[in-house]
Amino acid sequence: MSALSYTLEAACGAARAGTLQTPHGPIPTPAFMPVGTYGTVKGMTPEELRSIDGHVVLANTMHLWVRPGDETIRDLGGLHRFMGWSGPILTDSGGYQVFSLKELAKVTEEGVRFRTPKDGQYRMLSPEVCVRIQENLGVDMAMAFDECIEWPAGRDRVAASTQRTTRWLKRCLAARQQPERTALLGIVQGGFFPDLRAEHADELAALDLDGYAIGGLSVGEPTDELLGMVEVVAPRLPAHKVRYLMGVGYPIDLVEAVRRGVDLFDCVLPTRNARNGQVFTSLGRMSIKHARFKDDPAPLDPGCSCYTCRHFSRAYLRHLYLSDELLGHRLLTLHNLAYYLGLMRRLRAAIIDGPDALAAMQAEAVRASLPPGAYS
Amino acid sequence: MSALSYTLEAACGAARAGTLQTPHGPIPTPAFMPVGTYGTVKGMTPEELRSIDGHVVLANTMHLWVRPGDETIRDLGGLHRFMGWSGPILTDSGGYQVFSLKELAKVTEEGVRFRTPKDGQYRMLSPEVCVRIQENLGVDMAMAFDECIEWPAGRDRVAASTQRTTRWLKRCLAARQQPERTALLGIVQGGFFPDLRAEHADELAALDLDGYAIGGLSVGEPTDELLGMVEVVAPRLPAHKVRYLMGVGYPIDLVEAVRRGVDLFDCVLPTRNARNGQVFTSLGRMSIKHARFKDDPAPLDPGCSCYTCRHFSRAYLRHLYLSDELLGHRLLTLHNLAYYLGLMRRLRAAIIDGPDALAAMQAEAVRASLPPGAYS
Repeated sequence: MSALSYTLEAACGAARAGTLQTPHGPIPTPAFMPVGTYGTVKGMTPEELRSIDGHVVLANTMHLWVRPGDETIRDLGGLHRFMGWSGPILTDSGGYQVFSLKELAKVTEEGVRFRTPKDGQYRMLSPEVCVRIQENLGVDMAMAFDECIEWPAGRDRVAASTQRTTRWLKRCLAARQQPERTALLGIVQGGFFPDLRAEHADELAALDLDGYAIGGLSVGEPTDELLGMVEVVAPRLPAHKVRYLMGVGYPIDLVEAVRRGVDLFDCVLPTRNARNGQVFTSLGRMSIKHARFKDDPAPLDPGCSCYTCRHFSRAYLRHLYLSDELLGHRLLTLHNLAYYLGLMRRLRAAIIDGPDALAAMQAEAVRASLPPGAYS
Repeated sequence: MSALSYTLEAACGAARAGTLQTPHGPIPTPAFMPVGTYGTVKGMTPEELRSIDGHVVLANTMHLWVRPGDETIRDLGGLHRFMGWSGPILTDSGGYQVFSLKELAKVTEEGVRFRTPKDGQYRMLSPEVCVRIQENLGVDMAMAFDECIEWPAGRDRVAASTQRTTRWLKRCLAARQQPERTALLGIVQGGFFPDLRAEHADELAALDLDGYAIGGLSVGEPTDELLGMVEVVAPRLPAHKVRYLMGVGYPIDLVEAVRRGVDLFDCVLPTRNARNGQVFTSLGRMSIKHARFKDDPAPLDPGCSCYTCRHFSRAYLRHLYLSDELLGHRLLTLHNLAYYLGLMRRLRAAIIDGPDALAAMQAEAVRASLPPGAYS
């Protein structure tokens, strides 16, 4: 019995509106997962996330392993209780973080041995350890441990790495102790080689996993290449399973990926950009530090009904940002997440509504992804 | 017609329970004013401050003058609208900040000429400028511009400075343009010389000001000396005017000052200490980074009903603090302010209730002021 069940409710071309049932409640899809690396979406309370229609959050296996430790969290009742979030949680596998340590990490068939910069300690992250940590955290969705390689990479390198990812996935499956509580999602790799992507998607589809992720994208390639890979992979995945595109992206990337059959997303853009004073609005991105906002009494986005836009002017938010005030980071983060979550909500409604509505969402998302200064 | 009116509702010895009416609503006293230097109580929304019984906030004249500028704020509808706070606001005069610039500031009878570290600009802060800025901000309570001198200082130095403070106060009074909208509070100086304090209190009392502050204390002296000066000054101030003790203090200092007739307080302790991981509880202060909280599932203060204590464990708050997460600063700040504001609420009830209740508050405040590690 899988911990996840996906129900398709409407489709518009390849775009899907559905519901993903998890041990901690339903997620209407398409859905965006705010990133909460250390068990907190930076600056936000669980209550605020719910107030802006956040249904699921993402946390990080490796970071929580190192601090405060997965066993500490397990003994305190699991990650949900620890962070006060009663909805679904997905953890990434930690693979990406380990591989980004580069020369501090040594990769073998067993796994990755690495030295944590934080405490100087040596650790071994393997498929088995990765599953154990995520089950200790008690999350709804665990990610399989996959090999992440440099980009660009040659065909042989990609093929060998993709095969290792499959072997590691099988070890992850074998290591599970509580499959009814924590689902395991496999990750389709294959670099930017359509045939390798197709082959890997077929291979993983045959394993009848709880859900499927598309990994190894959004690593610096042009958007067209990214979407090209999604087009190859998505149709080969089982229709009754959820599909998650990892680490993507700008509003228009989300809409385009949804149009190609993706259900689930995570990205640091709304939260990280907020801390840099970059705001997403239905009219394009804005940089709040810009001098033209000094006297501007308007809200960030006149079309937005989030707490920030209901109560504060661009002038005040600019002042907070320039004064490096905590409240500034907080209010911009809340707004950016509200924008992303609202976009997904409207996108879902558009899929149910039909092609014209979906085309209108595309147009909005193109505008919303414009760089700061590109509008008025 | 004064912008302020103080009504005494109950007394217990010299302790007073009253209501201070302001242009932006009533303040039940004794009251604590959270510090919002730059027009934001660090990390808190106005909504949160109200949720923990915050009635009035303090902002800083000099900081808002430098950034974003008092005229900018005036043109945006005043400080209340700018920061989204509809309750009363008091601004300190900026004198303390200017004098703490030391060699960057030159004091004359005209005022203080200084160079702002932030932008390297030369500025002149005088009684007239000080009143103009605070009226531009549109605050409920402006503080007179007073001379702040080093501690300890000799009798002649203190006497001369106190006389200058009176001359500056009279210039402040003459400079006012909107006395019905912005009250002006005078500041009693006199160092640690009881006769100078008494003389200055009498002099200011004769001016029938909107309200009275006791300044120049909490500058490093022992608590007994501070309370000694309060004992000299408070009884000489008009009974039907509010009394504000500037920059004080720990819970026990607040209770002891209330017992000597003070109504209003501000202090950075609850907010600044929160950002350093120092927590106030009814059982004493605690340092959340302490290793003994690593696995502790209890709330910060089992007797507290703030959002932080209702939802999060010490273990989680320690984790957030060690990870330098914004949410940690936020949740600790909320709790510390809830503690201070709750203390004032209970203190007010105790004054109405009588001597036994007030003695019980003293006992709690002694406990609450214990340094970290002093309990259990």
